[in-house]
Amino acid sequence: MKPLRVAIIGFGKIAADQHVPSIESNPRFQLAGTSSREGKGPQPNFTDWRELIRSVDGLDAVAITTPPSVRYDIARECLEAGLHCLLEKPPSVGLADIHDLACLAEAKGLTLYTTWHSQHSAGAEAAGRALAGKRVAKMEVRWQEDVHKWHPGQQWIWEPGGFGVFDPAINAFSILTRIIPDGIFVKSADLAFPSNAHTPVAGEIAFTSPAADGPMTCHLDFLRKEGEDWTIEITTTDGLNVRLERGGSDLFLNGERQDIDSPGEYPGIYREFADLLDERRSSVDVAPLRLVADCLLVARRTQADPIFM
Amino acid sequence: MKPLRVAIIGFGKIAADQHVPSIESNPRFQLAGTSSREGKGPQPNFTDWRELIRSVDGLDAVAITTPPSVRYDIARECLEAGLHCLLEKPPSVGLADIHDLACLAEAKGLTLYTTWHSQHSAGAEAAGRALAGKRVAKMEVRWQEDVHKWHPGQQWIWEPGGFGVFDPAINAFSILTRIIPDGIFVKSADLAFPSNAHTPVAGEIAFTSPAADGPMTCHLDFLRKEGEDWTIEITTTDGLNVRLERGGSDLFLNGERQDIDSPGEYPGIYREFADLLDERRSSVDVAPLRLVADCLLVARRTQADPIFM
Repeated sequence: MKPLRVAIIGFGKIAADQHVPSIESNPRFQLAGTSSREGKGPQPNFTDWRELIRSVDGLDAVAITTPPSVRYDIARECLEAGLHCLLEKPPSVGLADIHDLACLAEAKGLTLYTTWHSQHSAGAEAAGRALAGKRVAKMEVRWQEDVHKWHPGQQWIWEPGGFGVFDPAINAFSILTRIIPDGIFVKSADLAFPSNAHTPVAGEIAFTSPAADGPMTCHLDFLRKEGEDWTIEITTTDGLNVRLERGGSDLFLNGERQDIDSPGEYPGIYREFADLLDERRSSVDVAPLRLVADCLLVARRTQADPIFM
Repeated sequence: MKPLRVAIIGFGKIAADQHVPSIESNPRFQLAGTSSREGKGPQPNFTDWRELIRSVDGLDAVAITTPPSVRYDIARECLEAGLHCLLEKPPSVGLADIHDLACLAEAKGLTLYTTWHSQHSAGAEAAGRALAGKRVAKMEVRWQEDVHKWHPGQQWIWEPGGFGVFDPAINAFSILTRIIPDGIFVKSADLAFPSNAHTPVAGEIAFTSPAADGPMTCHLDFLRKEGEDWTIEITTTDGLNVRLERGGSDLFLNGERQDIDSPGEYPGIYREFADLLDERRSSVDVAPLRLVADCLLVARRTQADPIFM
């Protein structure tokens, strides 16, 4: 089978660390080019993505790994040009534009794939299977990390559309929307906004679900220096304890660590992309971004100390 | 044809002023009962909506006109009980719950109808027809009113989930999503939050659209004492000027007021509800609420003076 020629638009850390090796190790794909404003990335490399999609022969698809705010315009032009599109998470800053891209992809018979890498973590799928058909007695999410360590100097996180603590938390949300055995909804959201920021630095979220009989809480903190934590812990009404640690990498059932065979997050994403392309299907999942929007719609706002990057 | 028996859940001002007369003047419907915590509204009247849906014989449908925050739980139980549901605007505070209700209604073969009364204003549909197939050269929306006049003492507007200035503005958004001849997206949103409120009191929104070549601006102000204004003005690239005034009641084309035969907003809603019920279809439109969510997702926040109701 002829490999699918895919180009990467926006060549930052995630493209170099994850997308390039995942494409290169999957025989279904061939890396056909890259673009970045700085001219980095494997050859052929372009500083203008429009030049890339005009110049590369036999291009089938693009993986768009730019910052979210510019993805809509790029994806729309790529779809108009007949290219299948894979979008890094979150697929965009707003929800209306994703809906528009989904309609356009469907009208053109192209594949649009909104990826959420944490859904491909080693433990997420197995956690979902363990919880299927059960009721939730209690859920606690702790997503607490040091922004200065993971995003040194990245002021954009505090700018409009920068997501703040939702930038990491949306990974937790992307797992929750897959593993909770029914819908999950935001009941309340106490959000702390630094006095010099447009996005929150911490949050206490209460969720509800038709599948839950007890409290579902979520603690978000982007200034956690000691004891960083990316844990989802769920106890079911029949006494099963499901704990995902390290962002879904480790799964414990009743305290016992599970041995899971997994291709890894980004190799898993490209396997699914190949399946979608074979079947000319799209996978457009807005549920994690919708939970962020719902947090903002119901938010109780408090002011926090100014942030300095 | 046997009239459809509909009950009203949540009997406030909008139910008394609009829903009751619209139901009573439409021969397709029969008002089968009402519920409100205070025991107001036409008989049979219940203080508990669960008692209402258990007690009323041959009930077909409910119109849920409570505040948005409690609508999801009520609608879910009503759908589970086999009742068609009409929801006042906005259908809920969050987006995930509407998606859940839409899935449930579809699974049960029931009609779910999210109403947006301004879409039934005399001028909205005609404005949409006038703009069809055209390109936007310029759009300006002014939605400016005195909260103290229209919502005296209503502190809930400033509480979490109260929407603030988006409570009126979502009416404008509900018209825009119908009349702009392509998608409409939020580009930026400068929102002013009173220091003692959880929702914004004013906003400057910039929209974009694939159908627009020029600026699309929207000025929201909830403290406008003089010169209240609910106007949408659009000039097309071929020189047509379309102006909706008084929230869609009046339509001017190139400055000339149009004479439009319209049943009125709520009678129009109940006509559409009858059609949907006849065809066992749902009409679930989240686009206006999604634009509010997108404003919050991209928001640039400023602090405003405290608000006193």
